[in-house]
Amino acid sequence: MQSDAKSIRPLKGFREFLPEPLPNSDVWSMAARNYVFSKWRKTAIQYGFAEFDAPPVEPLDLYRLKSGDEIVEQLYHFETKGEKGSAVALRPEMTPSLARMISDYERGYSKPIKWFSIPQLFRYERQQKGRKREHFQLNVDLFGESGAGADSEVIALLIDTLKSLGLGSDDFVIRLSSRQAWEQFFSSKNPQATSADQYSFFQIIDKLERTDPTESNNKLQAFQLTLDEVQSFIDAANPTEELEEILAQLKARGLSDFVKIDYRIIRGLAYYTGVVFEAFDRKGNHRAIAGGGRYDELVSLISGGKVKIAGLGFGMGDVVLCDLLRERGLMPDFQSESRLDVFALIEDAGLRNETLKLVQSFRNQGLRVEFCLSDLKPQKQFKKALESRANWTTRLEKTETGLDLIWKRMEDRFETRQSLDESVEWNIAFPPVQSQTDL
Amino acid sequence: MQSDAKSIRPLKGFREFLPEPLPNSDVWSMAARNYVFSKWRKTAIQYGFAEFDAPPVEPLDLYRLKSGDEIVEQLYHFETKGEKGSAVALRPEMTPSLARMISDYERGYSKPIKWFSIPQLFRYERQQKGRKREHFQLNVDLFGESGAGADSEVIALLIDTLKSLGLGSDDFVIRLSSRQAWEQFFSSKNPQATSADQYSFFQIIDKLERTDPTESNNKLQAFQLTLDEVQSFIDAANPTEELEEILAQLKARGLSDFVKIDYRIIRGLAYYTGVVFEAFDRKGNHRAIAGGGRYDELVSLISGGKVKIAGLGFGMGDVVLCDLLRERGLMPDFQSESRLDVFALIEDAGLRNETLKLVQSFRNQGLRVEFCLSDLKPQKQFKKALESRANWTTRLEKTETGLDLIWKRMEDRFETRQSLDESVEWNIAFPPVQSQTDL
Repeated sequence: MQSDAKSIRPLKGFREFLPEPLPNSDVWSMAARNYVFSKWRKTAIQYGFAEFDAPPVEPLDLYRLKSGDEIVEQLYHFETKGEKGSAVALRPEMTPSLARMISDYERGYSKPIKWFSIPQLFRYERQQKGRKREHFQLNVDLFGESGAGADSEVIALLIDTLKSLGLGSDDFVIRLSSRQAWEQFFSSKNPQATSADQYSFFQIIDKLERTDPTESNNKLQAFQLTLDEVQSFIDAANPTEELEEILAQLKARGLSDFVKIDYRIIRGLAYYTGVVFEAFDRKGNHRAIAGGGRYDELVSLISGGKVKIAGLGFGMGDVVLCDLLRERGLMPDFQSESRLDVFALIEDAGLRNETLKLVQSFRNQGLRVEFCLSDLKPQKQFKKALESRANWTTRLEKTETGLDLIWKRMEDRFETRQSLDESVEWNIAFPPVQSQTDL
Repeated sequence: MQSDAKSIRPLKGFREFLPEPLPNSDVWSMAARNYVFSKWRKTAIQYGFAEFDAPPVEPLDLYRLKSGDEIVEQLYHFETKGEKGSAVALRPEMTPSLARMISDYERGYSKPIKWFSIPQLFRYERQQKGRKREHFQLNVDLFGESGAGADSEVIALLIDTLKSLGLGSDDFVIRLSSRQAWEQFFSSKNPQATSADQYSFFQIIDKLERTDPTESNNKLQAFQLTLDEVQSFIDAANPTEELEEILAQLKARGLSDFVKIDYRIIRGLAYYTGVVFEAFDRKGNHRAIAGGGRYDELVSLISGGKVKIAGLGFGMGDVVLCDLLRERGLMPDFQSESRLDVFALIEDAGLRNETLKLVQSFRNQGLRVEFCLSDLKPQKQFKKALESRANWTTRLEKTETGLDLIWKRMEDRFETRQSLDESVEWNIAFPPVQSQTDL
């Protein structure tokens, strides 16, 4: 039972969230997290999406099935006790669990199914600046619609989510691409290629922006392609029919400024089948804020072929997003917001129990109320009332005939007084005056 | 990459949450979870508590330190890769992480510190009815106040939280007890006993209600006590001075009907030092709904003696609570609530893009709007509007001079029509009529 300070530090890459972080602290803010989550929820609900959740621990095979063995190295995985030989993992993404739930329950739901969730996700990876081993992610997914109408709806939701946080078309852009366009380009040169070959090619394209050109060119030779040919295809940015329809629908919504065709985007994951896209920070270091695409085969893969249903969606993490909002000055100043309706001062310690009755009557009305839990000097109590950012203080005062309640509005120190009848339950109007104009 | 349905089932004891569970489904409801969480948050905030969070994975030593080696068997624990020999665990409770955060950051905060959180917690245990391997728990904790004022505030919050969900004094009662009362009783018979002896004795008391009397009596002999003596102490229910003060303050708040002294409660965890309490279902099978107490030494233990600060709190799990609310008919009928403000019908497929403009203008106002993402017959679209529980439908119609917008209120099929100017941005008032009396 000896304490060992080092052994109880948080694991590297895992965050603590303080209610109101101390100035200059690098600890994350729960108020900021709740603010971002509330905007995420509100926009998804506006679009008719409903929230779900799935276990944060899943059988390792759920991820192996979808992404192959290479993913195992990036997971927190371990053997469970009791259930012999069952390897489990902390979820690195939500889509496999969602695909299982869809394959299990889709028959009972009217189509399209529009669901969202805000899971915490885990990746075991080398620590880098801004990279955590966990993050929270908004996941938005739509099943049962294979047309461009669904793609444009999901992309519009992504745009409106970022807009709801104060970001504009100067701040971010959605780079739109197409797995189909890349498949056509690839198979025109490699008509006999397997899907594994195609996936290897996609991985080269995915890493193009971060890889030395000579190295990329060498790798492309295996597929009868040169870097110049690939670059020409990217530069032409010839939209497929599907992309044209998506762009037309986004234009009809007035969202053209937020999207552009960019075939450099292909996405790393194996399961995409149609449109793919990423939201990018236009300024700063051009970070990816969100990414997604269409995956019409995934539910079939997860259900062993039993359920076939079109799907698409995107994920948006909280770490890059919160950094971006702070940089642009778009994170609200939570420390200036009112926290309380009433702070109940107890200047006469003999009136503590009467004050408790008062506090309870306010809370029964739904008000936010605090008071000092032990006896303190009036000055110290008033300091607490200031710290707690209360809109009003109250204090009780014995009079010759009974009990008076004295209100003070903290904004302008306006005071008002009312008499209370101790023999009945209190149901006191709040605020005691309706507005400034009542004075 | 072959599918194996069994290997991708959720782990036993882990829940999936569907947005709106199918009738007769035993899957949990996300709507119900969000409802309970929102009541938890609202009441805690009313009492001036602020939300925090901590990592769901922590060093195993954090729990070993507080609760000893026996807890390790009940944890999901494993070795991390990379960081050699670092055993980690999925958190079984929030208090150790919280105590660490308090010891790290308390200097920067005005006292008392009042924090809450809603973590998901994990226990590896044999599956029983109603027992999961994970659950969500409201955790409410208060630091820096050692007097009865803090105890009564935390217990009042527990009562108001359950009241906010519709439960009354016929439904639940808080059984109040005192570690100090038990310590005095124990040491009067065992003046030389160690704290380990005392803890062994507390464990016998904790299991009294579930253990055969003869077995309990035998175990008590080691401490110069008989079951009769213990039973007399329990039956006397002689409140300590501290408990009397807590009861007086709860009475002043009008909450007497929700509490009683009951020394059968002692709580299993080692770290409690003062008042301990549990909330119990009065009917049904008398399940524990919540439990907590005072732990004035815990932060000191976790910080290796560097920080000494009084603390107390409680936890309330979602599984027992949701079962109870459903049994009592107190869970709202989420399936009858309106989900949308507007469902935009597209009867003329040529007006899809104009409808997208309309939908976007509504969403820009903050309205919840859906429409069919691909072309469907008008009848099928109207069926979708009904399923989506929209308050209004809209449809656009070409006229000789331009475009009309036709509204239908779903409640009474009331219709109204307005002309739109296609050349400008739309900013259309919602609802189109203010109330029934406008008709």
